[in-house]
Formats: sequence, C-alpha cells, structure tokens
Amino acid sequence: MAPVITLTTDFGHADGYVGAMKGVILRLAPEAVVVDLAHDVPRHDIAHAAWVLATSALEFPAGTIHVAVVDPGVGGARTPVVIDAGGHLYVGPDNGIFAYVAERPERVHAITSRAFRMPTPSETFHGRDVFAPSAAALARGLPPTAAGPATCLAGTLPWSTRATARGVVVHVDVFGNLITNLPGPARRVRVAGAEILPVRTYEELAQGGLGCYVGSAGTIELAVREGSAAARLAIGRGTEVELA
Amino acid sequence: MAPVITLTTDFGHADGYVGAMKGVILRLAPEAVVVDLAHDVPRHDIAHAAWVLATSALEFPAGTIHVAVVDPGVGGARTPVVIDAGGHLYVGPDNGIFAYVAERPERVHAITSRAFRMPTPSETFHGRDVFAPSAAALARGLPPTAAGPATCLAGTLPWSTRATARGVVVHVDVFGNLITNLPGPARRVRVAGAEILPVRTYEELAQGGLGCYVGSAGTIELAVREGSAAARLAIGRGTEVELA
Amino acid sequence: MAPVITLTTDFGHADGYVGAMKGVILRLAPEAVVVDLAHDVPRHDIAHAAWVLATSALEFPAGTIHVAVVDPGVGGARTPVVIDAGGHLYVGPDNGIFAYVAERPERVHAITSRAFRMPTPSETFHGRDVFAPSAAALARGLPPTAAGPATCLAGTLPWSTRATARGVVVHVDVFGNLITNLPGPARRVRVAGAEILPVRTYEELAQGGLGCYVGSAGTIELAVREGSAAARLAIGRGTEVELA
Repeated sequence: MAPVITLTTDFGHADGYVGAMKGVILRLAPEAVVVDLAHDVPRHDIAHAAWVLATSALEFPAGTIHVAVVDPGVGGARTPVVIDAGGHLYVGPDNGIFAYVAERPERVHAITSRAFRMPTPSETFHGRDVFAPSAAALARGLPPTAAGPATCLAGTLPWSTRATARGVVVHVDVFGNLITNLPGPARRVRVAGAEILPVRTYEELAQGGLGCYVGSAGTIELAVREGSAAARLAIGRGTEVELA
Repeated sequence: MAPVITLTTDFGHADGYVGAMKGVILRLAPEAVVVDLAHDVPRHDIAHAAWVLATSALEFPAGTIHVAVVDPGVGGARTPVVIDAGGHLYVGPDNGIFAYVAERPERVHAITSRAFRMPTPSETFHGRDVFAPSAAALARGLPPTAAGPATCLAGTLPWSTRATARGVVVHVDVFGNLITNLPGPARRVRVAGAEILPVRTYEELAQGGLGCYVGSAGTIELAVREGSAAARLAIGRGTEVELA
Repeated sequence: MAPVITLTTDFGHADGYVGAMKGVILRLAPEAVVVDLAHDVPRHDIAHAAWVLATSALEFPAGTIHVAVVDPGVGGARTPVVIDAGGHLYVGPDNGIFAYVAERPERVHAITSRAFRMPTPSETFHGRDVFAPSAAALARGLPPTAAGPATCLAGTLPWSTRATARGVVVHVDVFGNLITNLPGPARRVRVAGAEILPVRTYEELAQGGLGCYVGSAGTIELAVREGSAAARLAIGRGTEVELA
C-alpha cells in the first residue's frame, strides 16, 4: 500500500509554501500519496492545529505520516521532531502542536540526520527543508530512530482533550460551534453566566436556537442552529465551562 | 483503474472535518483516489453546492463517486442516500444538493446497511460516519443496491438548471459573475430594471464594462470585466432575468 | 512513475471550476496525479501567481506538468501555450504568469492541435477546455511540439526575481511578509523612508519586531514577528527597496 502523508499548516492557499512542500515530498518519495488536511489554520495558532490533528489524524490508516507546520518559532530553539504514537507518525516542530495526539508517545526523535533534511536548510521554512524531507524519508521506509537522538516532547498546551466536571472551550470551529473538553453524555452546562440546555442532536435545535449536545469529538459542544454560538455568547477558546 | 471519490462540503479548510472524511475513506478503501472539488461552499448553502456539482461532476470519468455534504439537517429527518445517475454515483443527504445532477436518477437507495456506515454513527457528523464509509463501500465494489432500500429523492431546489425566456440567477461565483438558467445564444436580457447587452466573450468587455455572454455552463452569464456583476447590480441568486 | 500535474488558479474553493479541471484531467489521463498548488491567488493577479510558481514548481520531480490559470484575458488575444523550461512543463495563458519560471525556455508552443483541447472550447473557461486537456495530453506522453507551432513568449512582468543594489517588493505573502528581489546575504535596507535592520532568522525578532533576513526564496524579506510587515509599513508589491 502506498504510504500516506497528510499536511496541516497555517500557510493558506495563496502562496507557494504548501506547493513547495508537496514538490519536495513527491521528488523524494514519488510513491507517497499526499493528502491535505487543513491549510487555513489561523496564523500561528498552534492549539487550533493541535485540535485539527486530534479530530482527524487517527481516522487514517495505521502508519500514516502526519506533517504539521504551524511554527512561529522557526529557526529558534524549538526542536524539529519525529514522533511515533498510537500507530501513527508525526513530523513537525515540538511546540505543542502534537500535544493532543501524542500524549503518551512511544518514541520521539529530534531531527538531526542528513537523510531527514535538506543539505543546508533555510532558517525560515523548515516545512520545505526539514519536515517535508523527513516525511519523505519515513515514506521511503526509514525508521523514526534514524531521524536523530531520542528526546522527550517539551511543547505543551494549556488544556487536554478531556476534563471532568469543569472544563474549557478547546476549539471554535468554522461554524462558530464551541467544542469543550467535557465528555458526554450531554448535560446542562454553565458558561459565561448562562445555562445551556442539552438536546440530542443539532437538528433538534430550533432555527437560531442555542443548545449543547455530544459533538463528533465525543465531547459536549455548544451550537446555534445555522448560526454561531461563539458570536451569540461572545466567547472563544479557553472560556471555562462547567456541568450545571 | 483506481476508483475516484470527489468531496464537496461547506467545512472550509480550518478544521479537521475534511481530513476526518479523507482518513475514513483511505482507511476503508486504500486504493481510492480522493479529489477535493470545493470546501468553501458558503455555510449551509445547499443550492450553491448543487451548482458546484452540476458544473464539475460530469467532467469526471464514468463511475466516479461524488460525496457532497452541506447538511444543516444532519441528525434529522432527511435521508442519507446513494444515487446512481448518468453513469456517476452520488453520496450525501437528500436535501436538494443532488437536484441538478440527478434530475432523473436511475436508482436511489437510502443508506441503512451496516456496510455503508460506522457501527454507531454520531448524530452530528454524517460526513465522517455515514457518507465517507458509503463512498468507501462503493469504491470497494459494493453496488448502490447494497446501501439499503430503494427510495425516491425528496429534496428539491427552487429552480432547475434550464429555463426558457424567463429565468433566474442560479449561481453567483467567486468573481461575482451572475450565472442564469437561460440557455444560449447570448441575447439582450432584462434584470433588476436594467438591460444588459450581449458580447461574444468576457474579453470583449471594456475594463469595468458590464455585459452578458454564454458562460462555461452553457447558459447566459452576466459579468463585469475584472469586477463583480453581483456588486454592480446589487442582486444575487434568485433574481429574475428575462430575454429582452 | 505516474505523471504529476499541478494546478495554480485564482478560482478559489467555492465554485466548480477547479473540480471541472480535475475531472477533465482524470477522464483524459487517468494515471495522472493531480496536485493543488494554490487556488486562492488574488483574482486576476498574474504576478502573484507567477511568484507562486517561482517558489514551488522547481521542487517537483523533473517532468512535472504545471498548469496555471489566472487569465483575465480569456477568449482574447493572449496565446494558450505549452512551455518546456528547465526540465519542467508549463501550460496556461501567455500573459506573464510564466515569466519567472520560464525566463529562458527551451521550447514554447502555441496550443492549436485538437489533441490538446476540447473539440469546441468555450470562450470563457480555457482552464477546463484547453489547459486541462493539454496537461492530460502531455501526461499521456504527447510531446510539447505536438501542441502547435513554435512561438515566443510575449507575456512579461514588471520585475525579475533578482535585482542588485536596488530592487522591489516582488511578493506579499499571506503573513504580510514583504519579499524582495534583492539577493542575500541580509543587509540593512531602505524602504519607504525607513531603515530596516537585518537579523539572522525570523525567530531572532522580538514579538512585534520588524527586521529583514534571507527568506526561503533566497532573497531579502521584511517581516514583523507574528505580525504583518505590509500593514506596519503600509506598502505592497512594487515598492522600491535598496541596500542602505
């Protein structure tokens, strides 16, 4: 089976950055199947990208290589890493972007080997010069251990994907849905001074109605039918939510 | 030849939703070639997505599987369906999204079979839990009849893709072009109190000039050269247009 | 190895235009691997698309076919062309879009052959009716010489990718970085009355700090850390920049 490489970035679709990464991968690993996950991650928003990975990476076949580049510290102290976790491989900067998908990684290796990068990488575009070559190396069958010395993940995020009775909004999606880290079943929740009542499905909400249900990530999600819960409640990621 | 699966959604490129669908498809049907059609369909705009399909699906090889998910009624009464029409297969909610491409379908089947969905589908994300598995099942060679009982399409749209002397604007594209359902050749048309003169090609328009011609869908289209006809005329989809 | 076809357009992701091109390619050349480079090129911005190609096309394997369609003159006098330059093939309108990647092309052919277009191409959508069929013809192994008569490129851009002591901003990327055509190493530069100091890497900038360094294109680039240099300096493409 052809190796699958996914790409998640904040590069958008107006520049050559994503294309350059795809070109490097297909030049170095012509058999790879390259799959776009999301390139409109808000600029520099590491936690947003981490949630994108958390809600999509594990749907792919075991052995898939996930490259994620939201990297405001490029050229600085954060370490480029290859991670082996839960049967999937991850490639990118160790800045917290893999905190949700690699809570207990089997292996983490700093990328130092010449087989995992361009001969003279630029200081500003590791997506093209380090992470794409690393993904290609893995796709050609090199093991994560060949990337460089074993290390531990240093990057963290303020929240985990699961809380108990008190949690936070961990993600605001493009529809304005507020996704919390409170696990199901749906319960009455308190947020920003308001009490939100549970419904079974999005479709049970009246047009413009606000409610909560268990979303596709398995956690409680607040939504307005064909509207934006984020706008209605004027809150965003990090807002505390508790079971009422 | 590898089976081709196209994706059309209003999920944008900032979340994990499209990625999750691709992951499910590649996990269940590793040989499939997954092709993005359009993911920036305006939120919940079923008629817009229907036009995207109408202007692109039939360009693909016969047997292509087109998945379309603009689904404000997810979890509610609309039926998930597999459609066989004109040599192509369509998978998605029966809410009108297939009204243009499946005006006279050969076969429509409600999706009820376990081979066409996840064991316990979520109520909020049928793209991942029902439609992606259905597309993968078709890609693996299961026939549409295996999806579930035969049914008829209930979803409709206010217009068809072809009118006669009186028609409407059926689509506003990203350039602000107003695409009507009046068939060619180009004629003088009346819209919003104005008379629009025909030109042979977009390029015959003066810079900033407004005119109409036969667009790529074969119908009369109103455009402003390097500008937006929708903004100039302050009209949108559904506005009546007639031959003058 | 499967032929690779890349796509660069200003069609966005809301309409059926990109999908129609992909459909035509996969119908005519089912073995081709179709890769999205960038579809959110600003509308009608030929120079922007030219830079996208300049910074990504050559990363692909030799023999890759790059289709680029930013084509405000569609249906008019500009010539549809196939270009062979530097081991890559380019397909699109001769309007300057290939000026950076094909400064000294080995071969340029006008597209006139029926094998390189639809039988009756529309006047408004050459992406679907001329350029996609041409790319498919090349992917099936037809040589560029079969496209039509040899010609010379007429399309130009106001700047080249390299200058000496005086240059211009040739591109503004999605982060608001100002990319010049002044080659490295990084030096103090003067722009819009301001003097900008060099740093070694983006990461050496303080939060919100403005500086310049050698960017991933190998030229001097002005940036604000986690901000927009274009907004800070209130300048854009074409602004003169000189070594101070």
